Amino acid sequence: MSATFEPEAPQTLEGWFVLKEVYSVDWPKWRALDPETRDKAIASAEQWLDVAPSDRQGGSAVYSVLTQKGDLMFVHYRSSPDELNRVELSLRQLPLFEFLVPAGSFLSVIELELDELAAIARRKLTDQGIIPGAEQYDEFFETEMAKQKQRLKDRLFPKIPNTRYICFYPMTRRRGGRVNWYTLAENERRELMRGVGRIGHAYHEQVTQIVSGAIGLDDWEWGVSLYADDMLVFKKLLYEMRFDTASALYAEFGPVHVGIRVNMDQLGDLLTGYLT
Amino acid sequence: MSATFEPEAPQTLEGWFVLKEVYSVDWPKWRALDPETRDKAIASAEQWLDVAPSDRQGGSAVYSVLTQKGDLMFVHYRSSPDELNRVELSLRQLPLFEFLVPAGSFLSVIELELDELAAIARRKLTDQGIIPGAEQYDEFFETEMAKQKQRLKDRLFPKIPNTRYICFYPMTRRRGGRVNWYTLAENERRELMRGVGRIGHAYHEQVTQIVSGAIGLDDWEWGVSLYADDMLVFKKLLYEMRFDTASALYAEFGPVHVGIRVNMDQLGDLLTGYLT
Amino acid sequence: MSATFEPEAPQTLEGWFVLKEVYSVDWPKWRALDPETRDKAIASAEQWLDVAPSDRQGGSAVYSVLTQKGDLMFVHYRSSPDELNRVELSLRQLPLFEFLVPAGSFLSVIELELDELAAIARRKLTDQGIIPGAEQYDEFFETEMAKQKQRLKDRLFPKIPNTRYICFYPMTRRRGGRVNWYTLAENERRELMRGVGRIGHAYHEQVTQIVSGAIGLDDWEWGVSLYADDMLVFKKLLYEMRFDTASALYAEFGPVHVGIRVNMDQLGDLLTGYLT
Amino acid sequence: MSATFEPEAPQTLEGWFVLKEVYSVDWPKWRALDPETRDKAIASAEQWLDVAPSDRQGGSAVYSVLTQKGDLMFVHYRSSPDELNRVELSLRQLPLFEFLVPAGSFLSVIELELDELAAIARRKLTDQGIIPGAEQYDEFFETEMAKQKQRLKDRLFPKIPNTRYICFYPMTRRRGGRVNWYTLAENERRELMRGVGRIGHAYHEQVTQIVSGAIGLDDWEWGVSLYADDMLVFKKLLYEMRFDTASALYAEFGPVHVGIRVNMDQLGDLLTGYLT
Amino acid sequence: MSATFEPEAPQTLEGWFVLKEVYSVDWPKWRALDPETRDKAIASAEQWLDVAPSDRQGGSAVYSVLTQKGDLMFVHYRSSPDELNRVELSLRQLPLFEFLVPAGSFLSVIELELDELAAIARRKLTDQGIIPGAEQYDEFFETEMAKQKQRLKDRLFPKIPNTRYICFYPMTRRRGGRVNWYTLAENERRELMRGVGRIGHAYHEQVTQIVSGAIGLDDWEWGVSLYADDMLVFKKLLYEMRFDTASALYAEFGPVHVGIRVNMDQLGDLLTGYLT
Repeated sequence: MSATFEPEAPQTLEGWFVLKEVYSVDWPKWRALDPETRDKAIASAEQWLDVAPSDRQGGSAVYSVLTQKGDLMFVHYRSSPDELNRVELSLRQLPLFEFLVPAGSFLSVIELELDELAAIARRKLTDQGIIPGAEQYDEFFETEMAKQKQRLKDRLFPKIPNTRYICFYPMTRRRGGRVNWYTLAENERRELMRGVGRIGHAYHEQVTQIVSGAIGLDDWEWGVSLYADDMLVFKKLLYEMRFDTASALYAEFGPVHVGIRVNMDQLGDLLTGYLT
Repeated sequence: MSATFEPEAPQTLEGWFVLKEVYSVDWPKWRALDPETRDKAIASAEQWLDVAPSDRQGGSAVYSVLTQKGDLMFVHYRSSPDELNRVELSLRQLPLFEFLVPAGSFLSVIELELDELAAIARRKLTDQGIIPGAEQYDEFFETEMAKQKQRLKDRLFPKIPNTRYICFYPMTRRRGGRVNWYTLAENERRELMRGVGRIGHAYHEQVTQIVSGAIGLDDWEWGVSLYADDMLVFKKLLYEMRFDTASALYAEFGPVHVGIRVNMDQLGDLLTGYLT
Repeated sequence: MSATFEPEAPQTLEGWFVLKEVYSVDWPKWRALDPETRDKAIASAEQWLDVAPSDRQGGSAVYSVLTQKGDLMFVHYRSSPDELNRVELSLRQLPLFEFLVPAGSFLSVIELELDELAAIARRKLTDQGIIPGAEQYDEFFETEMAKQKQRLKDRLFPKIPNTRYICFYPMTRRRGGRVNWYTLAENERRELMRGVGRIGHAYHEQVTQIVSGAIGLDDWEWGVSLYADDMLVFKKLLYEMRFDTASALYAEFGPVHVGIRVNMDQLGDLLTGYLT
Repeated sequence: MSATFEPEAPQTLEGWFVLKEVYSVDWPKWRALDPETRDKAIASAEQWLDVAPSDRQGGSAVYSVLTQKGDLMFVHYRSSPDELNRVELSLRQLPLFEFLVPAGSFLSVIELELDELAAIARRKLTDQGIIPGAEQYDEFFETEMAKQKQRLKDRLFPKIPNTRYICFYPMTRRRGGRVNWYTLAENERRELMRGVGRIGHAYHEQVTQIVSGAIGLDDWEWGVSLYADDMLVFKKLLYEMRFDTASALYAEFGPVHVGIRVNMDQLGDLLTGYLT
Repeated sequence: MSATFEPEAPQTLEGWFVLKEVYSVDWPKWRALDPETRDKAIASAEQWLDVAPSDRQGGSAVYSVLTQKGDLMFVHYRSSPDELNRVELSLRQLPLFEFLVPAGSFLSVIELELDELAAIARRKLTDQGIIPGAEQYDEFFETEMAKQKQRLKDRLFPKIPNTRYICFYPMTRRRGGRVNWYTLAENERRELMRGVGRIGHAYHEQVTQIVSGAIGLDDWEWGVSLYADDMLVFKKLLYEMRFDTASALYAEFGPVHVGIRVNMDQLGDLLTGYLT
């Protein structure tokens, strides 16, 4: 066995660092405030969100969370963990923070596997009827790959999709004695990932999926965010996924959070209970 | 392997979005209220429930929960997650909410598998002595299926059954290395689901069972609500189920909540401890 | 496969509904009370216990719980879940409740399997030297079964055994991929249950064991209560059980609570810390 | 299969009942006390510990716990669960208790297996070069066993070892489908326990190990307390154990607590933060 | 089987005892302080950190923790558990402590396996092109080993690496029925550890890794601290590790904490929310 180190892990490219924070509102305490103080707290919170960075620097979004898992979810895209830390610290100084009870958070970084780019390129060709073995396939593939690489910046540093709903869950690949993602051969893993890709592709007009890596950053290996205007699509897409081998055998899922997008100027409505 | 995506998941139809919320009452704090303030809090809560939507829009029900798992369970059926979010937000603005401590919640959507319709049709025929292979079986089957489809709306958008007791638990199909629902062949799954259906059918006069899907919405895959006037029936039905293969090998169950239905105008009795 | 439903689950008979509730006392808050208010709180709590139902209606008992798992355990036997709900609600209205912090609860119903009756009858005969195959065995068996059925009411609707100690734990039969109680053949389960019965029988003069079913009522499948005047007997009995196959392979145990019986008029002593 | 019950569990002898209680101090609340009230609280707590029973009745010790798992650990040896209950109740009446937040507890009873006595006797002989098969081995063995039985009282009713450090953890024998302590043959279990004994023996001059049984008393099957003057010895002994088959395959370990012994008259130093 | 005890566990050398403590700040309570009192609390906390021991005695560092897992992480290296206990107790007496909510801690001791030294020596030679079998290999190896042993003190008693980021997680070797680190043969374990070493070596210019043992001290077997100036390196290194057999099959990981180093004189900035 050679002492030279040969990396086995798929090569990844990284984009925005992402922080998700869920809070429950301490409603009785909040409602006990006099209207003026409440308005000031809302105004300073809206301002805090408003000074959110330009697109080059990332973005922030707020969601009204369903169920007792929380009331508010903040999603922040930033170019470094230091900037996310500043976002956290500044939120904690807001008057509103006195009424927020931490209910969950996740740190990750948007990532793309190089293999995934190639898979996308192949699917684009297939959609046009250009199938491996076809004449000039290699040329077409190279051209498509070049396009994909151009689009890379948009995929690694996207805007937060402006859909009505978000569905977020963390996940980990199974590392059991019998079933273990990390002891599969590279081509087996690639084949399995293709299945995942196909299902995602089938829903790509209805759902935007953003995958971020969390190994070494948080307790799960990945975070998956789905953005759509129809909440049933989350269920349909993920139910399909369940039957896909990569998911059926090798995926372990963490807690699911679903939320409804709240515009900056709706925060007051949400906090007075009259979100429409 | 073809790049075309062929769905493997059973096709489902969706109805009401469902929210269950369990709360513990902070009794000492509540009892410290002066009677007048308490009465007002009860009145506004009863009014909140009373403006519950008409049947077309869903419905709401309250249960007195047994054990320390909680005191109150609210069940809400609505036509969209947005409406459920409004229900949540409006509850949080009630004076009563100051005395409610969150103790559990579950978001799902009532669902029916197309396969299930066919199974019901077959059972109806069997009950009349019409067995596959019988003369004109196909015709009878088509007629029965048509009836089932007509009843679909009632099953996807039902009223909350008006029974004395509720039993609710979430569940997930097992996805282990050795035993995995999602790697079974389609006909195996169908066969197993038939067993589940038979047991449900055997108890259908005593129990109404409403299954809702929660993949992509909450942490378990399904929510199961049983409604009956005899609490022992829950135990007997579920004990039978335990021995059915689909359940014995492939089901993982979450926490069970049982409650006693409380009419809108009984909320005050419950909160003063004199429910009859 | 026939569409007729043939129950596989052992047939059970049900008696009292049982509620166990454990509470920690908020000692500092309690001790800050002036003696008069404290005495009144004790008096009303003792009265609450005192109006406990007659034997026909069940019974109630209080235990001083060992360790930080709690301070007080209430055990209530009642003829319906509604009555247990009333017990809960009335406790929550007591002044004492302000000083009780919920620390665990369990809802179940005393149950007996018909098979168990037959097993008891057989053991009774064996104790008298009458062994299967013996002359007139069947006659003796029938006579003994008739006696057992007469005793049924006492076993389904017992008084709470008046011993110094209680040991309570919930349990569930294992439903794993490799080892699964619910996929065993009926005669295998019966044989295994016989082992359990034999050990229980060996200790029956020292321990009264009351098993209650909780499927569809709470998160474990059964609750097991042991009542004895010597706490070491709990350890010895359960250590024996551990080696019995039914237990070694098929049982999963929940948290154990042990307590010392407190008479109604000792509640004040317990709450002032001078229980003898 | 005979209806006679033949115990399979190893025969055990029991000594002191043992209660361990861990508490976190509510430091800000404690530090807000005026010095005089604080001194009185310390004095009454020291007195409470001081009236600890004579050796015949057991003993009590206090430890300063490392990490956020707690601040104080009390260890109590008593001759009955009733006495331990009285210890608990009396602690809860102390002014100091207002500043103690429960952080863990364990109830068990010091136990010795008869087999263990024989194993010790054999090891003693081996240490003197007297090996099975040697001349007069049986006589030597009988003499040694007699000595061990004389020492029994000291081992079942020991003083709390007066070392600088304690390491406590609960454990359970594995009862899995594949690997199951309780389905092993008796001689296999005995052989495995010998390995455990050998490692313990190798460290016996540096560490005193006291094993107590908790089946039917608490949530784990045993509690293991190690007492030593060098904390690294805990790590070295337990690392060795990890590789021993009985431990590698059959042991599941609970949370570990390590503490530094605090003399009765040091409690004040500990609570003012100046323990030396 | 001989009664002589032959240790199987790898031989380890120990250095600093290490305590990690994570705290959440109670921001609303903290922000409600008047500026003067706040400044005093910051000053006394900075002074507390400042009297940190000289290098001979260890060191202390503070990190701003990302996500809701906490706000502050303290890392302390000391020469004994007693000194760490004193650090804990003195922190608890600080005015700042009133605003700190415990959120996690870990006790361990920096350790090095003798095998690891040899592995490092071999790698150093390989890096210079000196491969086993080469002329004078044994001489070179001895010389290199001597150098490693000289560096031992620095590795067992290091300064806390002064990097911008820390990543900490505890881990345990798997002890399952099918996959069990502790039943592997010694040479298998050694071979597997070589893989771990190779990956660490590949990243050694970007990351400093400090491994500490926690068997008998805390609930996991080891603590792993990674120190780097680029947070993505944590992800890349650990993703590589995931595919290494020792990790893929035999490692179970606990919660991950990442933080940004805060200088002593930045504590005030952090606590006023303006960390740069």
